[in-house]
Amino acid sequence: MSNKKPLSKSEKLKNDRKNEKRSSSMIKKSYILLAIFIAISSATMYGFKKLTTPPETPKVDLQQWWGKYPIDMKKDTSIRPYKIEFSDVIVNDLKERLLHRRSFTPPLENTGFTYGFNTHFLTQVLDFWQNKYNFKEREQFLNKYDHYLTNIQGLDIHFLHVKPNPPPNVTVVPILLMHGWPGSFREFYELIPKLITPRPNQDFVFEIIAPSIPGFGFSQAPVRPGMGPIEVSVIFRNLMARIGHEKYYVQGGDYGSAIGSVMATLFPEHILGYHTNMPMLGYNAMVTIYTLLGSVWPSFIVEPELADRMYPLSKHMSKIVEESGYFHIQATKPDTVGVALSDSPAGLAAYILEKFSTWTNMDYRKSADGSLLNKFSLTHLLDNVMIYWASNTITSSMRHYAEGYKQLMLTDQIPTDVPTWGIKFKHEISFYPDSILKLKYKNYLHSSIVEDGGHFPAMELPDVLADDIFDAVHTFREFHSGGQPPAEKVVIHPEVDYEKAKTVYEFTVKDSKGQDVKLDKYKGKVLIIVNVASQCGYTNVHYEQLNQLHERYNQKGLRILAFPCNQFGGQEPGSMKEILQFTKQKKVKFDLFEKIEVNGDNAHPLWKFLKKAQGGLMGDFIKWNFSKFIVDRNGIPVERFGPNTNPLDLEPYLAKLWG
Amino acid sequence: MSNKKPLSKSEKLKNDRKNEKRSSSMIKKSYILLAIFIAISSATMYGFKKLTTPPETPKVDLQQWWGKYPIDMKKDTSIRPYKIEFSDVIVNDLKERLLHRRSFTPPLENTGFTYGFNTHFLTQVLDFWQNKYNFKEREQFLNKYDHYLTNIQGLDIHFLHVKPNPPPNVTVVPILLMHGWPGSFREFYELIPKLITPRPNQDFVFEIIAPSIPGFGFSQAPVRPGMGPIEVSVIFRNLMARIGHEKYYVQGGDYGSAIGSVMATLFPEHILGYHTNMPMLGYNAMVTIYTLLGSVWPSFIVEPELADRMYPLSKHMSKIVEESGYFHIQATKPDTVGVALSDSPAGLAAYILEKFSTWTNMDYRKSADGSLLNKFSLTHLLDNVMIYWASNTITSSMRHYAEGYKQLMLTDQIPTDVPTWGIKFKHEISFYPDSILKLKYKNYLHSSIVEDGGHFPAMELPDVLADDIFDAVHTFREFHSGGQPPAEKVVIHPEVDYEKAKTVYEFTVKDSKGQDVKLDKYKGKVLIIVNVASQCGYTNVHYEQLNQLHERYNQKGLRILAFPCNQFGGQEPGSMKEILQFTKQKKVKFDLFEKIEVNGDNAHPLWKFLKKAQGGLMGDFIKWNFSKFIVDRNGIPVERFGPNTNPLDLEPYLAKLWG
Repeated sequence: MSNKKPLSKSEKLKNDRKNEKRSSSMIKKSYILLAIFIAISSATMYGFKKLTTPPETPKVDLQQWWGKYPIDMKKDTSIRPYKIEFSDVIVNDLKERLLHRRSFTPPLENTGFTYGFNTHFLTQVLDFWQNKYNFKEREQFLNKYDHYLTNIQGLDIHFLHVKPNPPPNVTVVPILLMHGWPGSFREFYELIPKLITPRPNQDFVFEIIAPSIPGFGFSQAPVRPGMGPIEVSVIFRNLMARIGHEKYYVQGGDYGSAIGSVMATLFPEHILGYHTNMPMLGYNAMVTIYTLLGSVWPSFIVEPELADRMYPLSKHMSKIVEESGYFHIQATKPDTVGVALSDSPAGLAAYILEKFSTWTNMDYRKSADGSLLNKFSLTHLLDNVMIYWASNTITSSMRHYAEGYKQLMLTDQIPTDVPTWGIKFKHEISFYPDSILKLKYKNYLHSSIVEDGGHFPAMELPDVLADDIFDAVHTFREFHSGGQPPAEKVVIHPEVDYEKAKTVYEFTVKDSKGQDVKLDKYKGKVLIIVNVASQCGYTNVHYEQLNQLHERYNQKGLRILAFPCNQFGGQEPGSMKEILQFTKQKKVKFDLFEKIEVNGDNAHPLWKFLKKAQGGLMGDFIKWNFSKFIVDRNGIPVERFGPNTNPLDLEPYLAKLWG
Repeated sequence: MSNKKPLSKSEKLKNDRKNEKRSSSMIKKSYILLAIFIAISSATMYGFKKLTTPPETPKVDLQQWWGKYPIDMKKDTSIRPYKIEFSDVIVNDLKERLLHRRSFTPPLENTGFTYGFNTHFLTQVLDFWQNKYNFKEREQFLNKYDHYLTNIQGLDIHFLHVKPNPPPNVTVVPILLMHGWPGSFREFYELIPKLITPRPNQDFVFEIIAPSIPGFGFSQAPVRPGMGPIEVSVIFRNLMARIGHEKYYVQGGDYGSAIGSVMATLFPEHILGYHTNMPMLGYNAMVTIYTLLGSVWPSFIVEPELADRMYPLSKHMSKIVEESGYFHIQATKPDTVGVALSDSPAGLAAYILEKFSTWTNMDYRKSADGSLLNKFSLTHLLDNVMIYWASNTITSSMRHYAEGYKQLMLTDQIPTDVPTWGIKFKHEISFYPDSILKLKYKNYLHSSIVEDGGHFPAMELPDVLADDIFDAVHTFREFHSGGQPPAEKVVIHPEVDYEKAKTVYEFTVKDSKGQDVKLDKYKGKVLIIVNVASQCGYTNVHYEQLNQLHERYNQKGLRILAFPCNQFGGQEPGSMKEILQFTKQKKVKFDLFEKIEVNGDNAHPLWKFLKKAQGGLMGDFIKWNFSKFIVDRNGIPVERFGPNTNPLDLEPYLAKLWG
């Protein structure tokens, strides 16, 4: 039984109120929850919108004055020829300083370049500079292209201007080549001839304009703060206009790449295409989100074969911290560190050349000479240092860091439609996947992947860079004429110097999963190296007989290395997945590698080596699918056969090699 | 009516199972929730425990060899006298370099020191160095204290050793003074005489040992990597043992402070007390948590009057980023930047002296001369630069950054019981509240707060530093004898030079809430300035009559400025809160300021000025509570009265001043 008393009226009222209160409190709670939900959703959407809504394009003053006041109203707009001069005064003073340089603190034991430029090796560099660097000859060398000065916005701007001399059916297209820090126009001297020379497969050739950035080399420095990549862009736009170019291509690395990016953002009407050998997008909140997402799920943002260029994130971040001290001090105290570098040629050489070692390959830090001469000659390196020394511009060049990064935080968030093409060298200090680059570059057409090279490709790998610039501009021109889709992604392999190689063991190839395979794993074996294709008339008999050879002689030490190649009749068009399906069906048991090219500039160096070692009857080039090379147990190519020779016909030649 | 059909057996069974499932699923869910709860709590507790459980104290090798191999088995353990020599060869070479220095890049317009050392001003510094710095005289000056060398662990270690000559009843206590970067033992030259001179109120005096850190000045540098603060600590411990000191005090700023902290951590048995003028605790996860908590709720970790030394966090973080470029490059590429600084005296001077400007006061960056001469003379500054130049040790000094911070990440997490005392100068580049310091320093006894001074107090404010070291060691000695509690916190006020001041308007005081009040706000008023106390026989009549004066003459322009002071009979012992309660009760309407001292070294400069301007009958010092100064409408003190003169008796004197 219930022991409840019947409720009095007042009690009922109380209860009603209580219930009312309770239900109204529940309604309130629901409202609060709803409000929180709406607030969070709105904040998320607002945040996302804010992150993905670009800021307004900054308004720039196209006539901003950078010289001393008062502004010169009778502006001299002439373009004056200029000669670089290493005067006796400069050279004698420099030699005196080098001679009387102080004894430097010896490096700590066995530390190579890890504490900075190794002073033991520096002594060799400075001795060379003082005694062997031929100042007069190098002056002539630097003057081999035409130099000019012209005053823009109060500053004398220096530039190289090199015109090609093409046959009538070849179009001349202007390209602005922009150096970075601590580089100069000198970086382009090996590249320029390759860009102004017509190519059989291209209907255009380049006219080169390579300026010195204001405050670098022979371009005057601004007298007041504020000269960052935006202001340099304005000056270069005005320079191109003065020369007479309304529309042109831009190319750059390092700071030159940043300027190119800003030009593509602010002046899309002038820029026909932007080619960069340091594609990056650093200052954009979405990039951070993508990068962090990718650290959990790399394939979300980066191709698996390139993932190790950006992950693990901690490794790459600590690399950046380790290598960005120069950036930090230049962005904050350029004038302090500039005093010593202006005054001491030894100090300047160490400061600049450390970057040519470490930025070419971080592993070079381990060696006592920074492996500096692996890729460069001292003469070439010192040409660049001389430009900083003779013009005394190290301080004004470093000041750009104090202005630059703030501006890039803005422009990196503004998209551009200018067609863009990046080439990614293996040892470049930063790496950004296409998925990130496309956040800004709405027409990011292509990345070339190079399994070699570093931060200074114009000097290190001028052939690779020149080829890529031609390919890029070819694609840009097709893009503008509404033509074909951009070129297929091609991986450019490390440039083992096939001319100097002695055996196949020196080369590295990629297996069918994209993993590096060093061929020295085949030491002591007899090899057949063959280019294969799935849709060729020779396909069936070759796969059948190669399988037989494999079964008969594998025990004796025969290994067959097959390289798919699509260069003959387009008979190997499929992806690696498709090719693997086909070879599975053919029951192939020998080793299959990644698809490559065997002819042309992009031919794999192994094949360049094979062709050179065993030339062909009608020329060294590979004539068709299923060309076969026999390599002996010492790695030396000893025979070569065309597709007409069936694999089983090779047995007598192989017999000689069974030891 | 219910339209439910009775359930069939099988349906019942189903339902039972369903219910079973549901309840078992609920149990499962509860288990999962419980598991999550346990996991989170454990993780939190584990994390907290891990954060608060110090790592093991590292084992150190007390005989680690730092010289070239092979180890010298017949070690020379003698202590050899040493003289600093600026030889003619060094001086002539230096003058040549200064004479032939290159023309430096002019500073950007109106940028002061914000891009680094201003090269216009640098020219003056270098001219002085070349033509006016008296090398012979400075050599003698530096040799005025006794220098020694002794070989420790393969390195010749240089040190100053200065013994006092006290009367018999005064104890001599040894103290190790440790310089930082870019300082040297020279920093202590103004401090040393003040530490070796007996004081009337102290029963001890100091014996000074001031070494050069290995790789700095005249101490040899290690030949292999690994010399960080831990290794320096070992060497200094062995140095003190060689000199014959088993127990001693340590003092330092900058890197010297870090070494002191490590010594207190690793060798508590030797260290009687640790005094630091840069108390910090950077590398400790709990510090980050505290700092972030404080950014939401500052009073949780820092006294309100000091909060602006560390918050807003963003402002202080960006200050640190702006000022840490040197740290970044020295921790990664010391050898690169060292080449130029070794070779160029101009570069070395700019690099070192920039720090003496900016670290003394960040606002100095705004002026074209970095206000470098506000606090220092060129001669004194160049003494320090000369030590780096003559010994050619800039590179080896910078290398410590490459080893140091990793070690501090370890030792900052290990607590120490060594009694510790910090003095916090207003413009020091880093600030850590006591609450954070106490995480490591279990006997952190006291912080002295100085409303003036920067990173180099031994040179800038040697009196303040010497007083503080005496106070600290006095307290350390009482701590060890189980004596009195540490001294009350005293705020040391900015050192306006009262001897040069002309009016009271030049001084700044703090109001009762700790806010700065510049006295020029009283321009044109007649002032009574008085020291007050709540528990004095004179209290009642003074508060009553001062109130009356205020009411009668406020309109005419009278202002009364009352300063609580506890120096007379301890009759103002309370906190500002208590004093304010008392004056509220007394209905005080005139202006009450923060509690100060009026006599002694720590007297507020305003009062030093008042006493000097209006001396007393039996001496200038203030005799008791309620001393009254009358200041005219031009800020000049014109009358002085003791406590025996009642405030209303001042009316005739005030009458003269009503204009």
